[in-house]
This record gives sequence, structure tokens and C-alpha cells, in this order.
Amino acid sequence: MNTPNTQIITPRWIIPIVPRDLVLTEHSLVVEGRSIVAIAPRDEVISAYPNADELRLDNQVLLPGFINVHCHAAMTLLRGVADDKEMLDWLTNWIWPIEGQLVDEEFVYDGSRLAALEMLRSGTTCVADSYFFPDQIARAFSELRIRSQIGLSVINFQNAWAKNEEDHIHKALAFRDQVKNHPLITTAFAPHAPYTVTDGGFEKIRLYAEQLDLAIHLHLHETEKEVTDSIAEYGVRPITRMNQLGILSPSLQAVHMTQLRDDEIELLAASNAHIAHCPESNMKLASGVCPVPQLLRNNVNVALGTDGAASNNDLDMLQEGRSASLLAKVTTQDATSLSATEVLEMMTLQGAKFLGMEDEIGSLEIGKLADMTAVDLSEPCHQPVYHPASQLVYTASGRDVTHTWVNGELLMQDRQFTQADSAGIQAHTDEWQQRIEASL
Amino acid sequence: MNTPNTQIITPRWIIPIVPRDLVLTEHSLVVEGRSIVAIAPRDEVISAYPNADELRLDNQVLLPGFINVHCHAAMTLLRGVADDKEMLDWLTNWIWPIEGQLVDEEFVYDGSRLAALEMLRSGTTCVADSYFFPDQIARAFSELRIRSQIGLSVINFQNAWAKNEEDHIHKALAFRDQVKNHPLITTAFAPHAPYTVTDGGFEKIRLYAEQLDLAIHLHLHETEKEVTDSIAEYGVRPITRMNQLGILSPSLQAVHMTQLRDDEIELLAASNAHIAHCPESNMKLASGVCPVPQLLRNNVNVALGTDGAASNNDLDMLQEGRSASLLAKVTTQDATSLSATEVLEMMTLQGAKFLGMEDEIGSLEIGKLADMTAVDLSEPCHQPVYHPASQLVYTASGRDVTHTWVNGELLMQDRQFTQADSAGIQAHTDEWQQRIEASL
Repeated sequence: MNTPNTQIITPRWIIPIVPRDLVLTEHSLVVEGRSIVAIAPRDEVISAYPNADELRLDNQVLLPGFINVHCHAAMTLLRGVADDKEMLDWLTNWIWPIEGQLVDEEFVYDGSRLAALEMLRSGTTCVADSYFFPDQIARAFSELRIRSQIGLSVINFQNAWAKNEEDHIHKALAFRDQVKNHPLITTAFAPHAPYTVTDGGFEKIRLYAEQLDLAIHLHLHETEKEVTDSIAEYGVRPITRMNQLGILSPSLQAVHMTQLRDDEIELLAASNAHIAHCPESNMKLASGVCPVPQLLRNNVNVALGTDGAASNNDLDMLQEGRSASLLAKVTTQDATSLSATEVLEMMTLQGAKFLGMEDEIGSLEIGKLADMTAVDLSEPCHQPVYHPASQLVYTASGRDVTHTWVNGELLMQDRQFTQADSAGIQAHTDEWQQRIEASL
Repeated sequence: MNTPNTQIITPRWIIPIVPRDLVLTEHSLVVEGRSIVAIAPRDEVISAYPNADELRLDNQVLLPGFINVHCHAAMTLLRGVADDKEMLDWLTNWIWPIEGQLVDEEFVYDGSRLAALEMLRSGTTCVADSYFFPDQIARAFSELRIRSQIGLSVINFQNAWAKNEEDHIHKALAFRDQVKNHPLITTAFAPHAPYTVTDGGFEKIRLYAEQLDLAIHLHLHETEKEVTDSIAEYGVRPITRMNQLGILSPSLQAVHMTQLRDDEIELLAASNAHIAHCPESNMKLASGVCPVPQLLRNNVNVALGTDGAASNNDLDMLQEGRSASLLAKVTTQDATSLSATEVLEMMTLQGAKFLGMEDEIGSLEIGKLADMTAVDLSEPCHQPVYHPASQLVYTASGRDVTHTWVNGELLMQDRQFTQADSAGIQAHTDEWQQRIEASL
């Protein structure tokens, strides 16, 4: 049965992620509307859908779109403005002053559009973002048609978006009501960090999160200083305080986690919390190393995020996956740590689990939504191809991505955006660059 | 004065490396024959060379070509054939058996051609390579027109190239005589490692190296096991044994150096030896971490290498530079370690010093050879561009390279090879893939 929007896609390889380690060749995948309806040998597919158009991708591997579980999209406008700085210097003398002076609705809208463009270009189909002005993030992401979880930021100081903790929570709930039926947007509470939200704030967030069935997305144990400061102020490490406040639960999306003791890994495992690993940001800011192989051995779900472009400096999940694997191998002194297969799972299916969306996205399976990407392996750096999964993790870059689909819609074709106004976004980016340079 | 081959190149930015931290805009660079003859404001250049063709590169940064100081080019044919293995398993159960069965003259020629193609594609203009059959490496590199230092391999066991240590040295000297006047090739002794060459072998190599003014390119302190084995066998760490044998000198190109004590860093500094840092190979094989910031503080010259594609898995110097910086920051717990400026110097000028060629290559200066590359910064992942050096190190990939010149000759233009038979190389690569897969 064909509908006008039936698409047959026949790539060189399909890596569906589920079942594990499978690589299909001479197979086609069929999309109808938003969903994957068939994955089968090409001959069978051509017979079953005789009138459908076929897109042949002779040099590409087709796989689920990447799920970037931690980002601050608007900060792409600050990409590379202040590199090679010590973290507190970077935050207090560069990022926060620029943000204080310039962040407004248009900054967030324009920066989020640029980020969405970069993500679609590099195969990311879903992102967990958090920043001020969630309504502007939603406006940008809706326009670019990327799937997202938008964080409802809560922080205990005044900024352009809200006056105080209370006001943040109030605005968060109002925004959540606005988008609750949006087909591409979900929301989660995003209290900034243990050191910027009060106990009272966390208690309210926990209460609302339970009532509304929302996740809690939280920077946690990013740096050693965060831990020692918490001991000085509260007498306990941040994760212990979060546990006392009832924040440790399957709803927790804990970001960074570079400082972890064995008993804390057990606590995370017992609570079924999810971890966002951001290796390049942690390395670039010299924050520390999340013990990913140990977490995985303890059955803790770990997904992959880029963090914002101000500390990475890109939103390229393929390069992030490589960094995750290389960092794990050298720090565990075990070259078998975090294999290509495990990295691809972190970039896709474990990201879907992190977001509570594993029934809808994260693998290429019949009935799931067609969030997909195609990566070209014909450049000299990819030859020869013994194992396409190895090539994706150990040699590919976002620039090898040629096609990206979200919700069944082809948003990038042969590296050209089909919907996005990339020239318009570039023009706004150029204006912001001038304003930001003038402000320094 | 114009000659028929005067080229004016006007990029968006020029990063000449010397002077440090300079970024030129609205400037042009002029090449005559093999050499850079002018770098000046565009207006002046256009007046001075009214009849020369101008190549405008409106989105690109022009900088010296990258110098990859450690590679085994032929091993690109083994890229990704055995990933995520423990190092000894990888070598003894995968790499060595395949090499033993299949490595011959054509393997080395075809693999080296594929590697040269990948390197030119990603902006590398000069490589220090070592493998068996140096004559075939030379044949491949001459054909592709990439500059090289070809290692004269010495190893104390039989292989397809030579029977024993003595035979290796004999063939090394014969090959060196063949290529000694080649415009793009220099040679260096390449004893494999302290554990695969005898004391007698090192003594002969030192003698010939002094007589012929050749460098000595040596894997040294790659792993902890190498160090503990040396203590068991010789009673001293490998670097001490090399010092006793007279190998530690300004002629030494020591590769990897992941196991270093403070007194050994002082010894290296006092000897004026050069270090090849291969961060991605060291991470992927879980070998350890070379203490680059500490070496640089002690005025030891450190350059950057990719190692072979069997352990990396690519020959992309831009990505290697990013890994070097991120690894240095996280392991020193100092986000100011190995800045973008320092990384670009490691990739260019310090590579030239490593090879003893700093008067000829490694920076864009009048009188130096025109070994150059142009990197496009127009993709969304590069926007906005506050500091092009930051973009090169923290966001660029080899796929952003659009133009590569060696010795004044434009070898890649708009990502198309002007000379190389890339289709022919691909056909041979496909054949080798089938033979290698059949051998497993």
C-alpha cells in the first residue's frame, strides 16, 4: 500500500542499533508519514511498494539520528569567543558579562537557530537544551523542525528571563503549558546546579516534576570545586544533598558527573537516574572525567551530549562519540573500553532512554518515528570500510553527514537544507558577532 | 616581475604562524615557482604583480601545510580492521598475522598512495613515515607529490623486506643512496623500538647516522610494559639504555614518550632531542599520556603525529590537534594548557624543527617553500568566527580543507585532486580489502 508520501531509502549500509551489532546491506527502509514501516531486503521492498520513489545512497550508512542530551544552543553565538581560559575566569570574566549585557529574546532565538542548523547538518535529530527564554528556543527549534526536550531553567539569581527562583518556576510552568501538545517538543525542569538553586527551590521542583511527570535535568558534580564547596556549605557532597532532597530518581538527568566515588555509582544505579556524558566540554574546561565504563558496568544509563558551543566548540555528535571512546580507553588503561558499538548506542538508543522516548526514537525499528541520518563513507579517510560502525566512531565527522530526517521529513538532502533559511541565519549570526565583539 | 607561474592567493585570513598569534586579513600571498615571494596587503600585491592570476578564497584561512611527524602510511589498508582490542591482542592476533601474510611491495605502494591521498585531502603537506619497503613508500609519495621523511626501518626479525638487523641496515643505506637528491624526500634511520633492536644494532645506527648526518626516528616509552620489560632485561629504563648507547642527541626523534619521569624530561631537554606526540593512537591503544605541557615548559621540541591508521583511525592532523589540546587540558587539570596557538605551532613549525627543516617549511614567510593549505570556515559549525585559530583547533576537521599546495604546486583545488588518480587508488584499495578480508 502506497501513500503519496511513501519514501523508500536504499543506503549502502543500515545500522539499526537494535538488534545490537547488526549491519544490513542490500536492504531498504520505508517511511510512511512520520514512521518507519518496513526494513527488508531491497527486492522485497521494491515489490511491496511498486509506486514509491526510491532514494539510493550508494556511499552512505543510514542510522538513527543522533540524540544530543545536553546543550545550550543559544551559546553557539559565543563559540570560540574565549578559549583556553581557566573555568572560573572563563565564566566570570567572559561568558557571564557578555550574557548579562546582551542576552535577550532575539539572542536566544538567533543562537538557537544557528545551533539547530549545525545539529541537522551533522546528523543530530533531537536535543535536550536548556537556557533562558525557553519560548525562543521553542520558536527556533519549531522553525528548523528539530526534535527537542526544552529545559525549564531555574536559577537563584536575576537575569533577563526571570527575577528570582520563584519567578523562574512560575515562568517555567507557563511555558510548559504553552508547548505541552507540540509534536516535536517535550519539557523538563532544568535547575541549573546544586550551588545555584536553594533547598526550597529543589523541593518545589521535585513536587511539580512529580505532579506533571517531568524529568529533572541538572548539572551535577561537574567539577571538584563544586564538591568541596558543597562540603563546606552543606556538610555533604552535592549528590548526597540531592538524594536527601528526593531528586535522585528515574526522573533525574544528571549532567557531567566527573567526580564520582564507587558508593555514589551504586547510589545512581539503585536510583535508576540517567547520566549525560559531555567528554569534550569536560576535557576543554579541565573539569574531570566521568567514569563511563564503570557506570555502564553498573547498568547506569549513560547518554552523550556536546554541552554548549562556548565550551566544546561544536555540536558534532560524531566527534563527541570518538572523544568519549578515546578518553575512556586512556583513562581506564583498557583499549577495549567503550567500543564503537557502545558509543553508537550512547549516541542514539541510550539518548532516547535518557529522554524517556525509547519507544519512539533511538533505533531504526518498524513503528518508530523516522528520525534518521545518512553518513557518507566515500572520502579517502574512510577507506577501506571493514566495519562501518568503526568508521562512524573513529574517523567520521559531522561534515560527512549528507541527509537528515526528523519525524519522517527530509530536512537536509545532499548537504543542502530543504527547509531552513541558512542564509538568513548566517546574516543574523554576522550581526551578533559584531555586537558581541563591540561589547568586549 | 611576473613569471608564468606566479600565483596570487587572497584568502579571508592568513595565519603565517610566524610571527606568533598574527592573523592577517585583506592580505595576499604570492608564490613563484616553489617559493613564497610576498605576503602583503592585497592592494600592494595587485599593483606589484599586475599580470598574475589571483585565486580568491573568501571563506578560507590560509596557513602552512600540516607536518605529520609520525605515520605508517601503508597501514591505511588495515584501517578499522581490528578496533577495540587490547594492544598486545591487536598486534599479535591481528596486525602482525595480516602483515606477515600479505605485506609486499604492492601492499606498501597502494597503502602509501591511499595515505598520501588522505593527507593531501586534509591539509598535510609533509609526513615522517616508516614501514617496510621504503622504495615503495618513495614511489607512492613521489607520485602523489607529498613531501616526506622516509624512515630506514631496522628491526631484529625477518620480514618480507629484510632478513635480519644487518640486512635491514644494508638495505637502508642502499635506499638512502637512491633518493638522496630527491627534491621532496629526506631519510632518517628508523630503528623500530628498544625492544626490537639490539645494542649492536643501535651502535651501528648511531655510527652511520653521524657519518651521513641522518636523524634517528624511534618508538620510545610507548607503553608501561615496554619500560618494565626493559628493567627486567637490561636493568634500566629504555631511555637510560638509549642514553648509554649515545642515541639521545639532537638527532633523536623520539615517538610517543607516554612514560616520563621528571629527571627524564630534564635529560631530554639537555640532549635537545625531539618528541613526536601521537595523542589519538596513545588514547585508542590505552598506552598512556605524553606530558606535552611539561615538555614544552622545559623547552623540549614537541611535534604532532597521527601514527598509522590502524590505531587512530585517520591521518587527520586537525582532529589530532584538537585531541592533543583536550587531552592536555584534562590530564593537567588546567584549561589553559596547550592553547590553540600552541597546537597550531606543534602542527607546523615544531614539525619542521623536528625534521630539521625549519628554514624551509613550517611557516608562511618570504623565501620559504610554498607548502600550504586552505581551510574553509563557512560551515554552520564554524560560525561566528571570532578567532580563526580557535576554529581550526576546536571545530575544524580535515574535510574542511579545500586547497593544498606542496612545493608551490596546487595538488588539491576545491576538494578535487589536480594530479592524483583517486579513482585508481580506490580500485586498488577495494582489491586489498577483499584480499585482507579473505585472509582473516
